[in-house]
Formats: sequence, C-alpha cells, structure tokens
Amino acid sequence: MSETAAPPTYSYLGPAGTFTWEALRQVPDAEGATWRSVSNAGEAFADVVTGRSVGAMIAIENSVEGGVSATQDALATVPGLRIVGEYLVPVNFVLVARHGTTIEDVRTVSAHPVAYAQCRRFLESALPSHGHIPAASNVAAAAGLLTSELAEAAVAPPSITEHHDLAVLAESIGDNPNAVTRFVLVSRTLGLPPKTGADKTSIIVELPDDAPGRLLEMLEQFATRGVNMSLIESRPIGDELGRYRFVIDLDGHVHDERVADALLGLRRFSPNVMFLGSYPRADKRPVEFVPQYSDDVFTDARDWLRGILAGEPPVA
Amino acid sequence: MSETAAPPTYSYLGPAGTFTWEALRQVPDAEGATWRSVSNAGEAFADVVTGRSVGAMIAIENSVEGGVSATQDALATVPGLRIVGEYLVPVNFVLVARHGTTIEDVRTVSAHPVAYAQCRRFLESALPSHGHIPAASNVAAAAGLLTSELAEAAVAPPSITEHHDLAVLAESIGDNPNAVTRFVLVSRTLGLPPKTGADKTSIIVELPDDAPGRLLEMLEQFATRGVNMSLIESRPIGDELGRYRFVIDLDGHVHDERVADALLGLRRFSPNVMFLGSYPRADKRPVEFVPQYSDDVFTDARDWLRGILAGEPPVA
Amino acid sequence: MSETAAPPTYSYLGPAGTFTWEALRQVPDAEGATWRSVSNAGEAFADVVTGRSVGAMIAIENSVEGGVSATQDALATVPGLRIVGEYLVPVNFVLVARHGTTIEDVRTVSAHPVAYAQCRRFLESALPSHGHIPAASNVAAAAGLLTSELAEAAVAPPSITEHHDLAVLAESIGDNPNAVTRFVLVSRTLGLPPKTGADKTSIIVELPDDAPGRLLEMLEQFATRGVNMSLIESRPIGDELGRYRFVIDLDGHVHDERVADALLGLRRFSPNVMFLGSYPRADKRPVEFVPQYSDDVFTDARDWLRGILAGEPPVA
Amino acid sequence: MSETAAPPTYSYLGPAGTFTWEALRQVPDAEGATWRSVSNAGEAFADVVTGRSVGAMIAIENSVEGGVSATQDALATVPGLRIVGEYLVPVNFVLVARHGTTIEDVRTVSAHPVAYAQCRRFLESALPSHGHIPAASNVAAAAGLLTSELAEAAVAPPSITEHHDLAVLAESIGDNPNAVTRFVLVSRTLGLPPKTGADKTSIIVELPDDAPGRLLEMLEQFATRGVNMSLIESRPIGDELGRYRFVIDLDGHVHDERVADALLGLRRFSPNVMFLGSYPRADKRPVEFVPQYSDDVFTDARDWLRGILAGEPPVA
Repeated sequence: MSETAAPPTYSYLGPAGTFTWEALRQVPDAEGATWRSVSNAGEAFADVVTGRSVGAMIAIENSVEGGVSATQDALATVPGLRIVGEYLVPVNFVLVARHGTTIEDVRTVSAHPVAYAQCRRFLESALPSHGHIPAASNVAAAAGLLTSELAEAAVAPPSITEHHDLAVLAESIGDNPNAVTRFVLVSRTLGLPPKTGADKTSIIVELPDDAPGRLLEMLEQFATRGVNMSLIESRPIGDELGRYRFVIDLDGHVHDERVADALLGLRRFSPNVMFLGSYPRADKRPVEFVPQYSDDVFTDARDWLRGILAGEPPVA
Repeated sequence: MSETAAPPTYSYLGPAGTFTWEALRQVPDAEGATWRSVSNAGEAFADVVTGRSVGAMIAIENSVEGGVSATQDALATVPGLRIVGEYLVPVNFVLVARHGTTIEDVRTVSAHPVAYAQCRRFLESALPSHGHIPAASNVAAAAGLLTSELAEAAVAPPSITEHHDLAVLAESIGDNPNAVTRFVLVSRTLGLPPKTGADKTSIIVELPDDAPGRLLEMLEQFATRGVNMSLIESRPIGDELGRYRFVIDLDGHVHDERVADALLGLRRFSPNVMFLGSYPRADKRPVEFVPQYSDDVFTDARDWLRGILAGEPPVA
Repeated sequence: MSETAAPPTYSYLGPAGTFTWEALRQVPDAEGATWRSVSNAGEAFADVVTGRSVGAMIAIENSVEGGVSATQDALATVPGLRIVGEYLVPVNFVLVARHGTTIEDVRTVSAHPVAYAQCRRFLESALPSHGHIPAASNVAAAAGLLTSELAEAAVAPPSITEHHDLAVLAESIGDNPNAVTRFVLVSRTLGLPPKTGADKTSIIVELPDDAPGRLLEMLEQFATRGVNMSLIESRPIGDELGRYRFVIDLDGHVHDERVADALLGLRRFSPNVMFLGSYPRADKRPVEFVPQYSDDVFTDARDWLRGILAGEPPVA
Repeated sequence: MSETAAPPTYSYLGPAGTFTWEALRQVPDAEGATWRSVSNAGEAFADVVTGRSVGAMIAIENSVEGGVSATQDALATVPGLRIVGEYLVPVNFVLVARHGTTIEDVRTVSAHPVAYAQCRRFLESALPSHGHIPAASNVAAAAGLLTSELAEAAVAPPSITEHHDLAVLAESIGDNPNAVTRFVLVSRTLGLPPKTGADKTSIIVELPDDAPGRLLEMLEQFATRGVNMSLIESRPIGDELGRYRFVIDLDGHVHDERVADALLGLRRFSPNVMFLGSYPRADKRPVEFVPQYSDDVFTDARDWLRGILAGEPPVA
C-alpha cells in the first residue's frame, strides 16, 4: 500500500558482536533489516509474539551465553512460534585490551561469568594471579575497557575488534577450540520453508502418563517409519516434579512422507505434540534413510490400500 | 438376460453331513443355492478361481478333517481369493451302526483316520479289541455300513442320521468334548463385507529377509496402532528351507482407521502382504480397543497435520 | 547288574518303511535297538512317558502323515518330555504294483488319504479315470496289494521295495519334489545334548494375558539378546477359545549365554514356559549371530557388574 | 595413627549462603566437616579427584546457578566419580539492601546475571527504571552492598541474612515460586549406599553407532525389565558433531535384580556405560514396579534355568 514498506526487524541477544549477532549475520533476509538488540531470550521471544520483530535469533544448544533451557521451555509454552532456520557459530574468545597494554600489565580481567568459566584454563596459566570483574555480556566486558579503568583486559568474541577500537592480546583462549553453538531463527510465520533434502524437524512431545515404557512407545513411532532423531532431551513440564516433555529434532522435513506419518502417530499417542518447524540443516548434510522409507513406498502403500477399499483387483 | 438366473454354486468338502457341510448351513446366502460336494480343499479353491462356484467353505483352524495348512498355503499362493465370512462348528462324533446292531456286536469300526484318532480314548475303552477300517471321509465311513458288511459300526458326525438311516450306538465319543473347527467362506468377491464392530481381518505377510528382529519389527506395526492379533502362524514359503510367511488374523475391519493404518505400515515393511479379507467374526464378540486408537483420534491427527502443511494456526 | 542289558526300545509311526521309519534310521543309537511300530503320535508319546521306550520319533513340521499339531500339543501338555534330536526326511512317493502290472492296467489306486492328496496332480494326469481306495498308512497301502486285488497300484514311500516285493511303476510322483518333513526324537532324558555350534532350542510359551502387545513384549526378550527364531506358531491352549500358546524354535543352545539369558527373561515374563530341549540341527548349519551377543560379551558384562557390586574400581 | 583424624572436607559452590551451600547443609556427614568454598563445578570435581575433598555438592538439574551441563559432562569424562546422594533445594530470592534503605531509594540492583533473569518480572514491575550491575555470584551481589555504594539493592538467596547484616526489601521475588534445583553429592567412594526402596541409579550410556533405532534398542533394555527412567538427556560426546551420549536416571538400586539385569543388558549393548551410582532419592518416594519384576521373580527364573542346565526334573 505504502510506497516503501518499513524494513523488517530481527531481535537478537546483543549488543553487536555477540555470538548471536554472528548467527544473525548468516541470515540473508536479515541483510538491510533493522536489528534489535535485546538482553535475554525472553525479550526476543516477546518481540516475535507481539509482532515487533519478524524473527528472533536464539541459542538452542551448547551455548556459552546461556538461554538454552529457557529457549526450549519458551518454545514449549509460547504458542504460535516456529523455527525457520538453524545456524552454527564457532564459539571462541580473544583477550582484548586498550592499545598499549601488554599482557604483563593485566591484573584484572572483565568477563561475562560463563565466558570466564570457558577460558579458565588459559587465564589461570597466562595470568596466575589475576582478578575477575563480572560483566553483563561478552561485548559489554570489552566495551567497558574504553570507559573505565577497573580492568586492564576483557574476554570477548573474536569479532569484537569490528566494533571497538581494542588490541588483541591473545587469540583462541577458549578451553575447547572446537566449541560450536547452535542457534535457531524463530518467527511466527506458519508457512513452511521448502524441503531441501537436508532438513530438520523440531517437535516437543508430552508423554500420556508416566507408566514405564511410554518413552519406548513414543520412539517406536519413529522407528516404525525409519525416522532418525538427532536430538532428544527431557525437560520438566514444571507443573509438578517428575513430569517431562521431550524436545526432539528429527532428520527430515514434514513434507517427507515418513516424517509426516511419524507425526501422525505421535499426535495420536501424545496428549500434546508441538510442531516447532521444518527447516534446512545448518550443516547442509543430506538426510540419509533406507529406501524402504522413501516417499514412493508410502504412496505405493496408499495406492494399494485404496485399491482394497475400492474393491479393485490387486495389481501383479 | 434370462428370466431366472441359475442359482449360485457353493463348494464344500462333502458329502452332505460333514462338518464343512454344517458350516455351509450357517450361510444365509447358501440357502437355495447349488451345493457342490468336492473331495479336498484344492478342488474347492479351484472351483472358486475358475468361477464354477461363487464360494467355497474351507476349514482353516483346528480341523479334524485336515486341510488347514493346505488352506493357508492356498490363500497365500492363489491370487484373487478373499475370505468373506467365518463360521464355527462344534466337532463331535457319534458311533453309528445298522439298526439292530448292539455295541457288543461291534468287532470292526470304519472311520476316517483323523476322526479315528480323535475318538481313540472312547474306542479303546468301549471296544478294547476292535479293528479299524479306514474310510475316505467321516460320511463315507457311515454310508459304507449300508453297502458292505466289512464293519459293524462307523465314526460319524452327529448329523449323519439326517442323511442315512442308521442307529446311534454312542454319542459324544470325541476325546475333547469342546473341540471346535473354524471355517472360512472363500470367494473371489473384491467388495468388502460391511464393518459390524465385531470383525476380523486376515492377512499373509512375508518378512523382508531373515535378519533377527524382523518379526518384532512387523509386530510393532500392530502395536503402534493398538491392533490386536487373534492368530499368528508361521508357514514355510516353500522355495527354500527357513523362509517363512506369517498367517495373521487381526481384530477389526480394514474400515477401522487403526487397521487400515497398520496395513499401510505392513505394506511398506514387507515385500509381500496379501489381504485376505475383512469379515464378521463368527463369535460376534465386539472388538475391544483403547480409546487412544479410535477412528476419531486418527481423523483428528490428520486434521492437525493438514493444518500444519497448509500453514494454518494451531487450534487451541 | 545283568551281564547283558536288554536293548533299548524306540517307538515310531510304523510299519517299517514309513517316513518316520526313515527318520529313525538316521539315529545312530537306534541301531541294534528294538524298534516298536505304533499307529499314531499319541501312542508313541505314551511309550516314552511310561518308560516302555527310551525315545519316540515324531513328525513335527510339514508332515504328509499328519500328527504335527498333535505333536506340538502333546509336548505342551505331557510333562517331562524332551526333544533330543532333529531329523529331516525328503518326502517323496512312488507308484508301486504287483510284478507284471503295467500302468495301463491300473484302474484303482490304494493310498493313505493325505499321501493321495499330495500326489493328486500326477494321478489325475497319468490315470485320469482311476478310483481311490483309502488305506490306513502309506505302507499298508502297498502291502495290501499282496493280499488283496481291490487295487492294482498303491502310493508308497520310495523305500517300500526294501520291505515288500513290489514293482515301481512311477517315481517322484509327489506334487512338490522338494517336500521335506521335519522329525524330532523325543525322550524323557533330562541331560542336555552337548552344544555343537549348530543347535536349536525348542520352547513353548504362554502369554500372561491377551492384552495387545503381549506377543511383541515376548519377542523383545529375544531381540534384546540377539536370538533368532526359526519357527513360531500359535496354538490354541484349548481351555477356551482365543487363548494361545506359542511353539518356538530358537537358534542356539541353552548353553549359549544369549539363549540362556533370553530364557530367563521369558520365564519372568510368562506364566508358563516349557523347555523342550536344546539339540543339534538336522541341517548342521552353524548358528549365526552378531559379535555383540557372543558368550564373552555376556561374561564381560557380568564381571563389570560384579565389580560395581563389590566396590572395585572400574578397569580401564 | 593420630589420635584425632582431621575432619573430612566437602567442596561446594560458595560462598556460604548459596543454594549449593543450602544443599550441603542437608548432608548429615558434612556437619562438623570442613566446608571448602569453590568458584565453579570444575574446581569442585577436581577437589574430589585429587582427594582434597571427600565430597563435592554439585547442581545437576534445573539450576539457576549454571553448571548442569558441565556437571553431566564432568561425570561422563572424569573417571572414578560416584554420586552418593541427591538433595533438593527450593530456589527463591529476596531483594536485600543496607538497613535504612527503602524500595523507593533503589535505582541500581546488583545481581548475578542468571538470578537477575529469574527475577526479571518482579524487578520490571516493582522497579521499572532500575539499572543492573552484574555480580559474580548471588552472595557476592549482596555482600558488595556493604563495601560499595554502586548499588542500593541486591538479589540474593533467602538465607543471606544469616551471613550478612542486610535488610530484606521484598521476599519471593523469583518468577517461578516453585522452582527447585536438584543437587548431587559426588565422591570417589566405590562402596554403594544401602538400598532403601526409594533409590535412584544414574548412568551415562553411549550408543554403539548412529544407526536409526539405536536409542529404541537401548530403551528396550529397560522396558524388558520393567525399569522406569526418571530422566533422560542427550549430551553431545564432543568429539564430533552429532555423536551423543545419554544421561539417564533409573528408578531403583543396582541391588534391585531388575536394575542389575538392565545394566547387564546395557553393558552388552553399549561400547561405554558409566555407572555413576545408586543412592537414596531426595523425595524419599518408594520406587513402584509391577510384581512381575520383583526380586523373587528373578531368583525363581534363575533357579528354573539352573535346574534345566543341571538336568533336574521340572518342579510342578
């Protein structure tokens, strides 16, 4: 209607330079959009629910910035959310300081507590007698160096030097050099991203009751359709101790017959199945499955049954 | 075209008076039809396949007249056959003789070998020193008394006196007074008998290969849909030792959603599923199943999935 | 005590020349023993139970001489019986006649009804207008030719000419040239035949109740130990319609750890498990299983658990 | 040797007043012992491994102080650790200030970032325009009020007033009033706590490979023994993306036959099963199981099998 629509907004755990910001940089549609920095996952979800943002980038697995369980619980309880994409960000850290500072000058390190814990081995070895000042975020720790002299150095993501004029004293200081955080882009879009052959489907499933063997029954829904899980995690439902829901990632897209059929089985079994979305895998690895579960086997079976129901002679 | 169509023909293991004949008497449509007595199950099947008869009554379980394995194998290998009804006949025997004969006169007993074996306990006790002349059928044994004096008595079904003028020397002489044979009416009709709520579905399934656990995988197709089996039997496929097919009776009708869905799963799993028919149970006992597997749960799940695929918002 | 013990007795469905007799000829221990010909499986079982015979040869699968279901039921209900060996006999037939008779002379054929059915295709083609006189056994049919002229030819096992002076008019007249009957040697011996690596274990198992999924639960006992089944058959228990027991042959010997462990699981699951024996397979084919289920994996696991229970440090 | 042994040491995430400290207060043996305050879970584990402490109290589920995934990963990778007890601590917060401060005076709140997130709803409503200064721990936030005037109030555990002379401005300020954190006491003791009938067993299991259905196979080990799981969580093994181990809590003690047998099955199935311990449940709720899986059923089955292997006659 208007000549120029306002650009869409994306929410992320900011400020610019966080790992979440790195994840959002991988989204082509976010280029040229408004990026809204928020301070925790709850705010990001709220932005999507209220329509303030079209999408929110959220850490969902192995995060060093927290929020993973919170993300799963929000997806389980906030209706109308969908995962539309998955992104991987290597999690690494640098030690930064004001220009002119050397590592020998460092007596106090500013760091978000979780990042501090992730770099503990390096810090204890390189700076045996340092003190720690906690910061509200990885980026705030570094930015603070420019406004206060309480610390001489800060732990920050490698991209920090794009945002702040700081010197790198040491690189790759994380204890696990291969750490990766998995992020998902969450929106209210109900349209499904097209099937690419390298897709994931995320669901949350409650068991009907806590009778022994219920989880097994649930998994048989996947096994009898040849659907593989890449993640399963129990999360307390929260209404009383001992009731769990399961956060599950399946290989494949709901447009794959075997995935759709497994979802039907789950829906019949469970009092509550939440479909969180089918979306391309970050690693673009094609889904593998045995030929017995290919789409045409499903359509053949339906044709066969349709013939029986219609009273047609069997095809040789 | 013609004013009066010829009445349909039904084949049965005869002659009149056999247990198979008793079973055929339970079929309302067979009243007024032509009853064709044949001498074995193969002939009866052939009559149906060639169209000579519209139906054949065949013993399928626990028969004292043989033919059970043969029946299963014929159903597995002759294409185009369908079971359209199930009938139970109590299997009992009487000892008959020409009028005027007393039990003390009996020195030789004529009997079909299988019937003879079923009455062995009685015969050994009542006639410790009798001889046995084998007969081609239970009815032939009795009928022979009227044309030959080789035997003084015969083992026959209780209805024999409706067909032959003989005296009953002893009743209920079978070793197991509760023995029942299950018969099925086989036809080439592809139309399905209507669902009554007390139905059975018969199938034959081959396993994809002889890897351990294959049978378990097959049964999971039933378990995940809450479908109960009332019969399962392994039968050698016959092409080589150790390859088996399974003859299975399921509770329910292919018009029950859970049965239809289980058949879809089986068809995808197995290289060869033969649908033998859905038909009312002889005992008219309604099929029991937990509410989780009722038809509306299946249609609800399909509606839910359809909503996801169509991008509709979830219904609260 | 005595200098020369009386030779042991073996019972078989006779007379000499039957397929059961052929099976007994495969038993080395039966050489030089007394062979007792009986007229049905029940008699043979009774001989073993009473101690009259040390063993009975019984058809258990695919018999043309009947008795298979009867055998399974007897094993399920007669306590103290054990299967100690398995034997395969090719089931084939010849058409025999008195010397001097040609096939053109044959107008009436004497045959046991089941054998007659098995050769029907040949008889209908070679002797389109023949009559059939039923005989009490395959051997009696042939022997009768020498004492009566009611029939010109008889259907008999190939070995018949070792026992009776008859001429063979046609060989391999059975409809299925590869038919084989499986026999078992039954005794009261409680000692187990040694493990050969090519063994079978036969059991009969009742389900705890008829809840859906019970059979699946039973089969999981095998699947979780990598034990393969070569036969499973449901048999009505007989006390009321719809209650079944399962006759099962497992690959392996009860001295195999995985078989023993599966039996433990079954015994805990089922109200009634009958152990019928572990014995060498007739086909001498070594049992195949994945290394995960070899004996040493079982003993390693037990050692590991024992260490935990004893408070020992884990072995690296 | 010495007259008075030095009291044992317990490590906990300190300082005094943290939720972990509350958990340690529940351990009778820790009374009178030396309590060593450490700054993260890694340090606590290290204390146990090196023998510096006899036990470490560690948050394992639902923590607001972090460390849960780290705990699971440490238990999976540090050999020789055992869980010997489980403790529940209600997670709640108070808003504290220097005496004389009123809530209207509060402009800046000091709080550990995770605790801050947990109280966000209260803080946004009661103090709409407050600022946040992150602290290194919940206790440090409160203690800092006494040494610096940067903040007027702090978020702290309810027990804080036992340690610091502060005034409570608001109670129960956590968003979830029923939040509970589960802690475990970890030691190197290999002796097992006695079975109480209300026990848990914790294990970590790797799947043999990522073939579909492997998790199902694993769970069948529990289902076939009637063992219930109260927790299952997948954790990346860390060597490459997509390889998972499972952290599992079972109902019951390794001295329960069904648990021991399930562990045997798991050990045979999995390349790596870590036994983390059997210990009393914090909630003291007795383990429920169906009679079919009671200890005597297991011993009966073993007696039965032993009889078979020994060649003894079956007991009626």
